[in-house]
Amino acid sequence: MREIGLFERLKASCADSWQRYIRHDFIRQLGAGTLPKTAFRHYLSQDYIFLIHFSRAYALAAYKSENLREIRQAAETVTALAGHEMQLHISYCSELGISEVELEKTPEAAANLAYTRFVLERGQAGDLLDLHVALSPCVIGYAEIGQWLGQKVPATLSDHPYGKWIEMYSGDEYQAVASSAVTFLDQLDKRRGGDARFDSLAKNFKTATELEIGFWQMGLDAT
Amino acid sequence: MREIGLFERLKASCADSWQRYIRHDFIRQLGAGTLPKTAFRHYLSQDYIFLIHFSRAYALAAYKSENLREIRQAAETVTALAGHEMQLHISYCSELGISEVELEKTPEAAANLAYTRFVLERGQAGDLLDLHVALSPCVIGYAEIGQWLGQKVPATLSDHPYGKWIEMYSGDEYQAVASSAVTFLDQLDKRRGGDARFDSLAKNFKTATELEIGFWQMGLDAT
Amino acid sequence: MREIGLFERLKASCADSWQRYIRHDFIRQLGAGTLPKTAFRHYLSQDYIFLIHFSRAYALAAYKSENLREIRQAAETVTALAGHEMQLHISYCSELGISEVELEKTPEAAANLAYTRFVLERGQAGDLLDLHVALSPCVIGYAEIGQWLGQKVPATLSDHPYGKWIEMYSGDEYQAVASSAVTFLDQLDKRRGGDARFDSLAKNFKTATELEIGFWQMGLDAT
Amino acid sequence: MREIGLFERLKASCADSWQRYIRHDFIRQLGAGTLPKTAFRHYLSQDYIFLIHFSRAYALAAYKSENLREIRQAAETVTALAGHEMQLHISYCSELGISEVELEKTPEAAANLAYTRFVLERGQAGDLLDLHVALSPCVIGYAEIGQWLGQKVPATLSDHPYGKWIEMYSGDEYQAVASSAVTFLDQLDKRRGGDARFDSLAKNFKTATELEIGFWQMGLDAT
Repeated sequence: MREIGLFERLKASCADSWQRYIRHDFIRQLGAGTLPKTAFRHYLSQDYIFLIHFSRAYALAAYKSENLREIRQAAETVTALAGHEMQLHISYCSELGISEVELEKTPEAAANLAYTRFVLERGQAGDLLDLHVALSPCVIGYAEIGQWLGQKVPATLSDHPYGKWIEMYSGDEYQAVASSAVTFLDQLDKRRGGDARFDSLAKNFKTATELEIGFWQMGLDAT
Repeated sequence: MREIGLFERLKASCADSWQRYIRHDFIRQLGAGTLPKTAFRHYLSQDYIFLIHFSRAYALAAYKSENLREIRQAAETVTALAGHEMQLHISYCSELGISEVELEKTPEAAANLAYTRFVLERGQAGDLLDLHVALSPCVIGYAEIGQWLGQKVPATLSDHPYGKWIEMYSGDEYQAVASSAVTFLDQLDKRRGGDARFDSLAKNFKTATELEIGFWQMGLDAT
Repeated sequence: MREIGLFERLKASCADSWQRYIRHDFIRQLGAGTLPKTAFRHYLSQDYIFLIHFSRAYALAAYKSENLREIRQAAETVTALAGHEMQLHISYCSELGISEVELEKTPEAAANLAYTRFVLERGQAGDLLDLHVALSPCVIGYAEIGQWLGQKVPATLSDHPYGKWIEMYSGDEYQAVASSAVTFLDQLDKRRGGDARFDSLAKNFKTATELEIGFWQMGLDAT
Repeated sequence: MREIGLFERLKASCADSWQRYIRHDFIRQLGAGTLPKTAFRHYLSQDYIFLIHFSRAYALAAYKSENLREIRQAAETVTALAGHEMQLHISYCSELGISEVELEKTPEAAANLAYTRFVLERGQAGDLLDLHVALSPCVIGYAEIGQWLGQKVPATLSDHPYGKWIEMYSGDEYQAVASSAVTFLDQLDKRRGGDARFDSLAKNFKTATELEIGFWQMGLDAT
């Protein structure tokens, strides 16, 4: 029998918040194709800024790593996020009529500041496990959201107004990223004494999840 | 002729935001005594959590200090904030019917997370000047707010529902704290090359000011 | 039966290094009163710089604390170290012919840099437990050294060339500081999952202990 | 007329230390081919550990960066150092009879701890300019050393016992790395107000240079 991993236990500890996050109206409307373009565009513009700070969070993870393999892995994630992912993001925004210049000028929303700075500050004040727990609602949650949306709208993705976004997060590549984040969390949990720290980790996980809800809401409120 | 100090230049660089902060409806209603009790109590509960993270920010300042005098000064501020100020805050809340147990259980609002973590993270990513600039809208802004309110309602403070709060921030003691923060900012500005960094500092000052506006709004929205 | 605390287990994990630290020739000669004045004075001058960075380490601990009581406690330690302790240190140095101006001009020795920056960096990269483990060979080790010396030279302290130093570290006040550090370490150990992290903590404890040996050696080498 | 860049001014501010660093006996003997193998091997083993912490320093730089381009650049440096460079280092050590297992088991020398932790801690306590100034004696100094050695022993590199090492640091690739570090330092200097901070930067530059001297000396002392 396989024991229950840290990520599953964290989700279970705030099951209600987790559901409000991964089944947020923003996501339901996105899946149904009824999400107003303004909402999606506002979300994408903020997500551009989000990616920058998320890259910084993985850079912090590289700094906090204790062996070469993990330094390399974290650094490659920074390069992927700030490089390839960012290019995809910029192209996608451009298709939807948001130029790179506009993206660069977007003022950061409070919901964005709250989430990204919470993660970064938690990472500085705590250790690598604290940092990765704070990152996990985003990294792994997006895979759950993608999977759910992918199952709901499988045949119609090419006609779907947000098909490309759904494809990305339901796709094998992103699912594999999330899956290895789940595994790495278990390794850190074991190595950094996560059992004894569960209440503290769960508190931060819940905060991060609530801040993700705030992020979707920020998108929805833009309409 | 005295040259214009850093704090004045920072305020001037985002004059509109600054006015929306120090003349926020929360403040106007507080001054007029018409602010709903619910709003004020929500604000005070969040301010309890705010004080904890503000103490941590001064602890970070002590860590980032380069000489004994400044280490001592920052540490004394931590002791004052987390000790005496916190006791005053708890007593005041108790008078208004919020027990210490309730304060400890208050979930942190997103507006609170956004502001405090922005300050702390800026302090970690940048240097002592970055940190103190991010702190200044609160430390010095409250003195401006206190002074304005104190001039508006001077004779009636004892009958005023929020008289004690106004007295505290308009009082000589707090005004002196703010005044020495202005002076210290000028010292850091000179020592840490603030002139060349003004645009970057002004950007962070504006963000912090906007997050203060969000903090008042959070109080008002509680009604 | 009382279980063995973290500090005892850490010492046991590097028993040989620990003995070389607390029974270093610097200490033996100091106890015997044969330590050359030059060695002791060099040590004291470096200890002045050490105290500054040790204060900063406690400020970092205050920043990394998760509750008010611990923020206050750490901040009070900063104030004690950078205030009262520093004043005692300066007076003591002055009695031995080292002026405050000289202390301020002392270039920091590599052994000092190695130890203090290791502690501070460990504290930044890790969590509060990592930080306090790195601090413990100094904080608690000095009490063991003081106690040993105090037992060896109890009756002659007033005539002893280093009697004042021995009195300080063998005295009740310092012994109590060390004792509460032992207790706090156990609390952190429990709360932050120290059992699972023991190997990593022991590695850092050993490094810190070796760097303490290097500190004594630096004193001795000055002759 | 071209103004003198920050790096040149920093070197000039501690010209004597700089000479003792780039013309250290370790280097002179290395160039002459008379450096004992034991010394070189000890140096290489420590350099393995050094590379790990140097990678972490660039990860910290990525975290502290303010724009995408610089985040990417710093992350690529981490990947280069912890990936390609490390592989070259391991191969080179293997040719000289030091296995990867031995490298991993090498206890870190105090001189190594002192230098790497000083850089990392300076980077955490200060800003990006403080961090890059602390890194520069290594990054740029090695290019100066390489160039000098390359000019001294140009024709005989293939027979030279340390020819490969000299080739690497005198080679175009490394010279270009150092050259762009010089340029980047000037950009940071301008952007982060380096002129006003020169005394503080020079103090840290000198400390880092002295710690580099300590690093060579550690190699030499191994014989």
